[in-house]
Amino acid sequence: MMSSYSHKRMILTFLAFYGLCLAYLWLSSCPPFSDMEDQSSVPVEIKDLDKPIILLWLPPLDVKIDPADCKTYFNINNCVLTDDRSLYNVSDAVIFYHKHIKWNLSNMPSAPRPDFQRWIWYHVESSNNTVRRVGVDDLFNLTLTYRRDADITVRNELSIVRMAEEFVIPRKDKVVCWIVSNMSPRTGASTRTAYFHHLSKYINVEMYGRAASRPLSPDEYYPTIASCKFYLAFENSQSKDYITEKVNGPLVAGTVPVVMGPPRGNYEQFMPADSFIHVDDFPDPKALAEYLLQLDLNDDMYRQYFRWRKYFKATPHLTKREHQFIQPICEACQHIATDSTFSVVNNLNEWQFGH
Amino acid sequence: MMSSYSHKRMILTFLAFYGLCLAYLWLSSCPPFSDMEDQSSVPVEIKDLDKPIILLWLPPLDVKIDPADCKTYFNINNCVLTDDRSLYNVSDAVIFYHKHIKWNLSNMPSAPRPDFQRWIWYHVESSNNTVRRVGVDDLFNLTLTYRRDADITVRNELSIVRMAEEFVIPRKDKVVCWIVSNMSPRTGASTRTAYFHHLSKYINVEMYGRAASRPLSPDEYYPTIASCKFYLAFENSQSKDYITEKVNGPLVAGTVPVVMGPPRGNYEQFMPADSFIHVDDFPDPKALAEYLLQLDLNDDMYRQYFRWRKYFKATPHLTKREHQFIQPICEACQHIATDSTFSVVNNLNEWQFGH
Repeated sequence: MMSSYSHKRMILTFLAFYGLCLAYLWLSSCPPFSDMEDQSSVPVEIKDLDKPIILLWLPPLDVKIDPADCKTYFNINNCVLTDDRSLYNVSDAVIFYHKHIKWNLSNMPSAPRPDFQRWIWYHVESSNNTVRRVGVDDLFNLTLTYRRDADITVRNELSIVRMAEEFVIPRKDKVVCWIVSNMSPRTGASTRTAYFHHLSKYINVEMYGRAASRPLSPDEYYPTIASCKFYLAFENSQSKDYITEKVNGPLVAGTVPVVMGPPRGNYEQFMPADSFIHVDDFPDPKALAEYLLQLDLNDDMYRQYFRWRKYFKATPHLTKREHQFIQPICEACQHIATDSTFSVVNNLNEWQFGH
Repeated sequence: MMSSYSHKRMILTFLAFYGLCLAYLWLSSCPPFSDMEDQSSVPVEIKDLDKPIILLWLPPLDVKIDPADCKTYFNINNCVLTDDRSLYNVSDAVIFYHKHIKWNLSNMPSAPRPDFQRWIWYHVESSNNTVRRVGVDDLFNLTLTYRRDADITVRNELSIVRMAEEFVIPRKDKVVCWIVSNMSPRTGASTRTAYFHHLSKYINVEMYGRAASRPLSPDEYYPTIASCKFYLAFENSQSKDYITEKVNGPLVAGTVPVVMGPPRGNYEQFMPADSFIHVDDFPDPKALAEYLLQLDLNDDMYRQYFRWRKYFKATPHLTKREHQFIQPICEACQHIATDSTFSVVNNLNEWQFGH
């Protein structure tokens, strides 16, 4: 049987025969790709022909992606990443970042999708904060999102692994902390802002971040959170499975997250039930404040929130913004290289936004 | 950091210290496991301690499982399979076959689940044909089913892969065929039986299988299907994603499946839209029969159902019943060995049976 890559080689040979110098296009066209580590005289697309080609048709903008990143940061090296649209007809998969899809789909490929090619819908934002696109149903083959039931799930934030060493609670000199960049009452984050204002009447909250004019450097992130007994892990909106690095930060640092986002049951699918406090556990912010003040005075009660650490461990999330966007692309590369199951996404809008 | 397996080693050392001879229990207790290929003087659970232990607490009954099967048949060799319940406290995962869970859960473990251990819910039958268990919500960590959105999806039937060789339609000497073992009008399969009786008034259907007193040997399965232009791939019930080897058989053999089961859209998530005929495409069995007779006379029209084969290929499913049941367990082994993401299944009944 002829492999899919033999097929690709045939197409490339055909194109080469007609004088379309893919190598030239590759090397000359895509600026963010021009500083590759491993440039030799052999063009990439010929050299790596046994690896599937993943075309970033609509990558996340403002993020500099180097094709070597997957290997460098995630040890994933089984596909060729490109943003060269002239490779469309030979690409095994094409990635579309939802936010950049135009309402009338006018920036999608105009050529038909080759039968062997898979289109990947890439989405990282909360459903509530997302503009829907009517045309995306029956268009994609794979979903790449934070949803647990996505075809390719991006679990970059809450990968908790088993361990068996003694956990030592870091030294604390503050009770409640919050790092926040957006406190506008007019955005989707208005619920958390209102809740915070109510809460802060009853308990002091140490504020950091842009919104508090106390920005933190990446090096200060974990130590700052570690120095607080509780950390407000308030999502900017409530969507199923939308549980972000805001929760992972305190879990990694050794601090108890106070979460606001989807219901408690959804959090418990991602982390132990006794590893966090949910705002919904209390009738109002005042009751939550009283409970936190009670825990502050009672070390035995506080320590109950660390029992789970005997067997689980939160792994640090990626703090560089670029890496947060590249990591899902590398996961997609891994998927395409290892799983060629036929699939189609029918009811994308209903699936992603229907909850 | 101490690894999870170091932890397990500590527990085993502790148990050994108190005289519980695990090696003895292992070698003496589980009959289906006694004929392992690779028996040496080193007990398995000590020798393979760096691999996770998967305990089959409720395996599918009447299926003989050899711990070497995953390696032999699926090239998966990164866990230790056992049915020795004395290993419960050191098992990394425990598998429960849904059908064998008692209504009051009385045959589930009575000891608490160790924090590091994951419980796997294993289910292969159509939702409509399944007895629900009220107590299974919030009990398991992972789902192992045919559902596309399961934690571990069993895609043993419809793995279609790309190819580029010329497909030759096998020589046909029959129009419509059906292999069927259950035609009772009183079971869940009564819908398909009624449809068949209606259909067969208008077109001849060659019948095989137990219900037709024409049983086929495994060797006759693919050649028989290949000799027919169409094959009735009628599921015994309609459940989301419940698309079985009944469809894969004709796709592998080079025959057009006429499907009955979930709606067309669900089938199109698993295989190309022009690779099958759906009974719902027609107002009644008579109209379907007329269409099939029309295709029988028009080779050009018939050949349209083979266009997709330029890039896709159905891979033969496992025909031995044992292997069909063991394969999911090996997939679970693979998952446990490579993915230690924390997870809990909250609304199992709603998820599996709510559609």
